[in-house]
Amino acid sequence: MFNSSIIAEEFSSRIRKVQKLLQKDPRDGVLVFSTESEPYGVRYFADYWPSFETTGVLIPREGEASLLIGPESLTYAKGHSRLKNIIRMKDFRESSQPDYPGSKLATWEEVLAQHKIKKLGIAGWHMFPYAIMHNLEAAISKANISDADQLIRQVTLKKSPVEQAYLRKAAKISELGFKAVLEQIRPGMTEIQLAGIAAGAMLANGAEATGYPIWCCSGPNSIQAISRPTHRKVKRGEIIHFSVGAKVEGYSASLGRPVVLGKCPVETKKFLQVGLDAENQTIDLMQAGTPASEVAKKVHTAISKQGYGKAILYGPAHGCGQMECEYPFIETSSQFILEEDMTFMVDIFLAQDTMGFRFEDGVIIRKGEPEVLSSYKRKLNILEV
Amino acid sequence: MFNSSIIAEEFSSRIRKVQKLLQKDPRDGVLVFSTESEPYGVRYFADYWPSFETTGVLIPREGEASLLIGPESLTYAKGHSRLKNIIRMKDFRESSQPDYPGSKLATWEEVLAQHKIKKLGIAGWHMFPYAIMHNLEAAISKANISDADQLIRQVTLKKSPVEQAYLRKAAKISELGFKAVLEQIRPGMTEIQLAGIAAGAMLANGAEATGYPIWCCSGPNSIQAISRPTHRKVKRGEIIHFSVGAKVEGYSASLGRPVVLGKCPVETKKFLQVGLDAENQTIDLMQAGTPASEVAKKVHTAISKQGYGKAILYGPAHGCGQMECEYPFIETSSQFILEEDMTFMVDIFLAQDTMGFRFEDGVIIRKGEPEVLSSYKRKLNILEV
Repeated sequence: MFNSSIIAEEFSSRIRKVQKLLQKDPRDGVLVFSTESEPYGVRYFADYWPSFETTGVLIPREGEASLLIGPESLTYAKGHSRLKNIIRMKDFRESSQPDYPGSKLATWEEVLAQHKIKKLGIAGWHMFPYAIMHNLEAAISKANISDADQLIRQVTLKKSPVEQAYLRKAAKISELGFKAVLEQIRPGMTEIQLAGIAAGAMLANGAEATGYPIWCCSGPNSIQAISRPTHRKVKRGEIIHFSVGAKVEGYSASLGRPVVLGKCPVETKKFLQVGLDAENQTIDLMQAGTPASEVAKKVHTAISKQGYGKAILYGPAHGCGQMECEYPFIETSSQFILEEDMTFMVDIFLAQDTMGFRFEDGVIIRKGEPEVLSSYKRKLNILEV
Repeated sequence: MFNSSIIAEEFSSRIRKVQKLLQKDPRDGVLVFSTESEPYGVRYFADYWPSFETTGVLIPREGEASLLIGPESLTYAKGHSRLKNIIRMKDFRESSQPDYPGSKLATWEEVLAQHKIKKLGIAGWHMFPYAIMHNLEAAISKANISDADQLIRQVTLKKSPVEQAYLRKAAKISELGFKAVLEQIRPGMTEIQLAGIAAGAMLANGAEATGYPIWCCSGPNSIQAISRPTHRKVKRGEIIHFSVGAKVEGYSASLGRPVVLGKCPVETKKFLQVGLDAENQTIDLMQAGTPASEVAKKVHTAISKQGYGKAILYGPAHGCGQMECEYPFIETSSQFILEEDMTFMVDIFLAQDTMGFRFEDGVIIRKGEPEVLSSYKRKLNILEV
């Protein structure tokens, strides 16, 4: 989609932005930590996605940033990393905790000295392992380590044209996953089978992976906000909802749609319509300059007025980028204002008693109406089968 | 495969085994921590696999164990958890860190008091988040928290008949993934396409998921021990190796095989044969009563004698169960003796210069010869295409 010099510049500009912030920060370096299922930080700065092992990117105030990996990933990392300096450390080894006798691995003392770091910020703070912190504290002392999530977010929050293009492509491929479901779904198919159809179609159409473990929830399972598909067979007249998302060059979008096969009961249709109206209202409200909390309050008030206030669990939207769901959430308690080039998944999940569903679409914040990532129709999918 | 009363008893017996160990331990409870990509602990005790959020199982010395989840997973957890008591806590929320205004979430003070825990062990120590530890320390003090991995391993290390059956099934389905590759592979197909064929065949044949992000490494990529497939097209005469593994009821096996299309260069064939011989030798040596280090030393010596000592990165085997790669590793530095009902993946990975490959098969330790999980032929796959 882009030529390699644009991409190389994209990655080096990200590092430079952090280094610029560090000029005015008491810390002289940031360690960005990532895992296989939470890869966003390291993927953002190094284009590296760990498997089995964990990973970090160490960005000093000046000079070259380094990719920190476990003992087994050197050749894999060399094939993928945008950072040339790659350092193997025992603290990033896999959970089976091998010793690797004979392997020469770097210590925190060596790595911090090499990058001239005496005061360190850590991003990915909420998941940073206690065991690694313990070793870091021995090398640099507890007083010199602090949470750098806010610093990194200043760089990652607004998405560049390159990132927006990848998100559009991820949304387009997510559509193809859902379209394959619509073409093939029949009563009696299992949730796992249907999720497999969506995943297969996305991988066949250019997704590097699914953006998350995608799901199909049917009947009584439809009240699950987060889920995994089961062997349950889908039936006529019940809600079957799909969360389908592709990952492209590290960027994840998602499409959420409920489906009803055959005749849709009146109560179900009314409930689904409340969700669809809430999604459309949310998208209309998401314009640069609007306080995020105002969007949440208006949408939740509208849902409540229709008698479905208890069906609200969260939302009505959350950030998206290298994670399908990333900081920040739009909630009634949100403290920020929407700005141009922020990207969100509008995510209306409603559930009560034995019925639930999700409508989900991505948007890019603009001065006026937001850009919707997917052109896919926002409508009730009631299929004659 | 089993009736539900056997399975229910399997899960409650696991909790009871931990509680029995706690009778003789200064700690009065264990918190087992798991994530989406490292799900083994909580899946083992509660059959719950988190997505987006993280999770824990809290096992008190006496009384009922509880599943700890994030704010969004209650209905999902209710549909999967073997533990009836399910508690929502903010510390297990997703990385986008929503506030969930209005949700009633439990505190550590409440949860620890409810389970009568004053001294707590933590399993999954190496990945346990510093941020959660900070909150736990405020509730119970640092002196009362310690690493409980060794305690939990006394329960998980040997696999029950139920677990062994799931591992056999996972191995059987992994075979089907690789067979699909052998049937369809042609020069010019991409690594991603081939990995997709393997994954698709496993999901279609009863895998609940792949056991890990499976890969195909070809040509220069073949030296990657851990990897992800790329858009590279596979060619005649080069090594193309596959790591293919299915997950069944939480248990992951793997099959590792190199493939050469067309004519295999003499040097390549010699190198592959050294790996195959090493795999067969490892399997022959893995008998109950043998020190793990002795297996590693003999196999590594044999490889070195043939002139390929520098091609060794690790191994020659590692534990398997709910993770395809779990504790313990068999290395020259290993300090344990092989015992009946331990399960391992024999994992011979060799790489030098621009050539590498893996032979991998699962075994269950027996008094004499080990039981090999997969009946799939251990041979060089040189295919005429």
